[in-house]
Amino acid sequence: MINIGIVDTTFARYDMYQDVVAVLEEYTTLIKYKRYTVPGIKDLPVGSLILFDRYNCDLVIALGMPGPKPVDKISAQVASQGIVNCQLKVGKHILEVFVHEDEGDNDDNKLKLIMQNRASSHARNAIDLLLYPEKMTKRAGQGVRQGHKDAGPVKA
Amino acid sequence: MINIGIVDTTFARYDMYQDVVAVLEEYTTLIKYKRYTVPGIKDLPVGSLILFDRYNCDLVIALGMPGPKPVDKISAQVASQGIVNCQLKVGKHILEVFVHEDEGDNDDNKLKLIMQNRASSHARNAIDLLLYPEKMTKRAGQGVRQGHKDAGPVKA
Amino acid sequence: MINIGIVDTTFARYDMYQDVVAVLEEYTTLIKYKRYTVPGIKDLPVGSLILFDRYNCDLVIALGMPGPKPVDKISAQVASQGIVNCQLKVGKHILEVFVHEDEGDNDDNKLKLIMQNRASSHARNAIDLLLYPEKMTKRAGQGVRQGHKDAGPVKA
Amino acid sequence: MINIGIVDTTFARYDMYQDVVAVLEEYTTLIKYKRYTVPGIKDLPVGSLILFDRYNCDLVIALGMPGPKPVDKISAQVASQGIVNCQLKVGKHILEVFVHEDEGDNDDNKLKLIMQNRASSHARNAIDLLLYPEKMTKRAGQGVRQGHKDAGPVKA
Amino acid sequence: MINIGIVDTTFARYDMYQDVVAVLEEYTTLIKYKRYTVPGIKDLPVGSLILFDRYNCDLVIALGMPGPKPVDKISAQVASQGIVNCQLKVGKHILEVFVHEDEGDNDDNKLKLIMQNRASSHARNAIDLLLYPEKMTKRAGQGVRQGHKDAGPVKA
Repeated sequence: MINIGIVDTTFARYDMYQDVVAVLEEYTTLIKYKRYTVPGIKDLPVGSLILFDRYNCDLVIALGMPGPKPVDKISAQVASQGIVNCQLKVGKHILEVFVHEDEGDNDDNKLKLIMQNRASSHARNAIDLLLYPEKMTKRAGQGVRQGHKDAGPVKA
Repeated sequence: MINIGIVDTTFARYDMYQDVVAVLEEYTTLIKYKRYTVPGIKDLPVGSLILFDRYNCDLVIALGMPGPKPVDKISAQVASQGIVNCQLKVGKHILEVFVHEDEGDNDDNKLKLIMQNRASSHARNAIDLLLYPEKMTKRAGQGVRQGHKDAGPVKA
Repeated sequence: MINIGIVDTTFARYDMYQDVVAVLEEYTTLIKYKRYTVPGIKDLPVGSLILFDRYNCDLVIALGMPGPKPVDKISAQVASQGIVNCQLKVGKHILEVFVHEDEGDNDDNKLKLIMQNRASSHARNAIDLLLYPEKMTKRAGQGVRQGHKDAGPVKA
Repeated sequence: MINIGIVDTTFARYDMYQDVVAVLEEYTTLIKYKRYTVPGIKDLPVGSLILFDRYNCDLVIALGMPGPKPVDKISAQVASQGIVNCQLKVGKHILEVFVHEDEGDNDDNKLKLIMQNRASSHARNAIDLLLYPEKMTKRAGQGVRQGHKDAGPVKA
Repeated sequence: MINIGIVDTTFARYDMYQDVVAVLEEYTTLIKYKRYTVPGIKDLPVGSLILFDRYNCDLVIALGMPGPKPVDKISAQVASQGIVNCQLKVGKHILEVFVHEDEGDNDDNKLKLIMQNRASSHARNAIDLLLYPEKMTKRAGQGVRQGHKDAGPVKA
């Protein structure tokens, strides 16, 4: 059994956990999962580490929604760097699923759709990284996006 | 007994420690706490580490007020990255309670209210993370804020 | 036999792996290689570490295409810092082959040519670093570029 | 005896060491100190580490003057992050005493006064952190500044 | 015998190595040196580490020329942070000798002169740090520059 951790925040304005779980539940014979909730995105690096340490997770999905202000953009950078450092500490993937609030253009419906799509897309990436890495490689260099339409490969 | 560290600065223009303690005192049978004061926000990462190392704290609350100038914003980023790195070193939470001085819009009353509210809200987060993590998870994705009105979940 | 890892992303809009391999295949008696694909550039640091850890690679080539928006530029900085940190952890080179999407000036043909050229040029750098370091030193201070025309040494 | 390290630079345009020593000399029965000089601010993190490693210092005071240009501001950020990282490595304080050259508004007298005051104030912080931590705590949240007039606590 | 490492890049448009060596050759009975060349500035941190690890260097001089574009400025920050982190890992100095291409104001003669002067000045700093630290301390706070005219101490 593979063990996936999911760390999320109370700050985010949509509960992406449900969209991750909807994907993981398709693989109940192969995958179990554990959730841990922290206040904001800068708590996600240690939240991920706690999931690795306490629950021996093989991969963590880190769900967060950075705010729209300059100070929030800096917080996102700090959080991302911490998530990268945590991965280098444990030698395992943390898939950062960040949806910046201003990606929604002040439209809550649009924001929710991006969050749903990005969360479920990265849940599938988690499964492929752990179980079907050859599927990842088939998509290499193909301009794949999560939460937005694929950009696709260069037309050249 | 759970052991919470509180690290704060002489630079900040309001003593958030009292607001943290007012919350922790509701849990005297469960929680003890230790205070340590440093000059400014860039001293908070090692101040937190000292609380973890010397007093075996389970979690640290780091209280700081970054100034309003560009150089202060850089200091805040450096401090935050250090706080994240410290958490990854010890595998325990540091709740960063930063109120940027310009959040107060040059109104000391407003600044004080934000600092009081953010400090006490994160004190409650500290308790929930350590004792009642299921309460954190109930608030996941709900647009919770500290020091300002909750943004609430997406209306969609 | 020298062992080169190649980590690439599904986000990139061109498959630079083929251009790296075309170079490496000229050295089949000396070099073997292993590929690993991750979602985006911020996954490249741990992707590189996995190649070092699992496959005992001597050097990793990290292929990525940062997007054109400000948030993408921050992601590129976070990824680059992680790649540097990973190198300091293992004591081995990771050659970062990043082509920013806006280097192509919205011309897919131009973008593809830069990606092809930069990938193959860094594949040759990888070989020289591992097998012929004296060739690297001959080019020291010569204004060598990858993906664009060499700047050349100062005319003075 | 407590052992304080002082690391400074040849780049700075005023010798803050003398102001630090004037304070430390008031405590000759309690404190000894050791000086080490490096070229510029980015050399201060390892300079501090060398003082900790070779001379077993209990705390280091790092004196520097970042220049006024954008490239100097980045250097200051890199240096500060390194100083924080060094503190997390050794678990001891480094008090960063940076005076940005442009704080002096092109007035060398003003610049010198800020540097003198900030250096001596942080020398007193060093002593309080090591010997009289309760004095630090008395000043917590009081808007204390070094090199400029105290901002004081919020008036509310 | 003291052992100095010199790491440089193929990207730079002038070969600063020769200017470093011209200084080191004045100390042939005291100093030996080893060169290692990497592609660009972000390869300098691990290049330095390799010199420390493989050749047991006591200090490394890292020679690089960041380009003039915003993306190059970010690369320089990432490289500098890596150089600082490497120093904290090994506890030894790396003297970063970076000349930003735009320091030359599009004048190759000016650029070359800055590079020559900065390289030789830092070679002398390397020697003083290792052999004559009291000479460094004599210059502390004196507004010393490398590659440009000394700013000198404050006139106050």
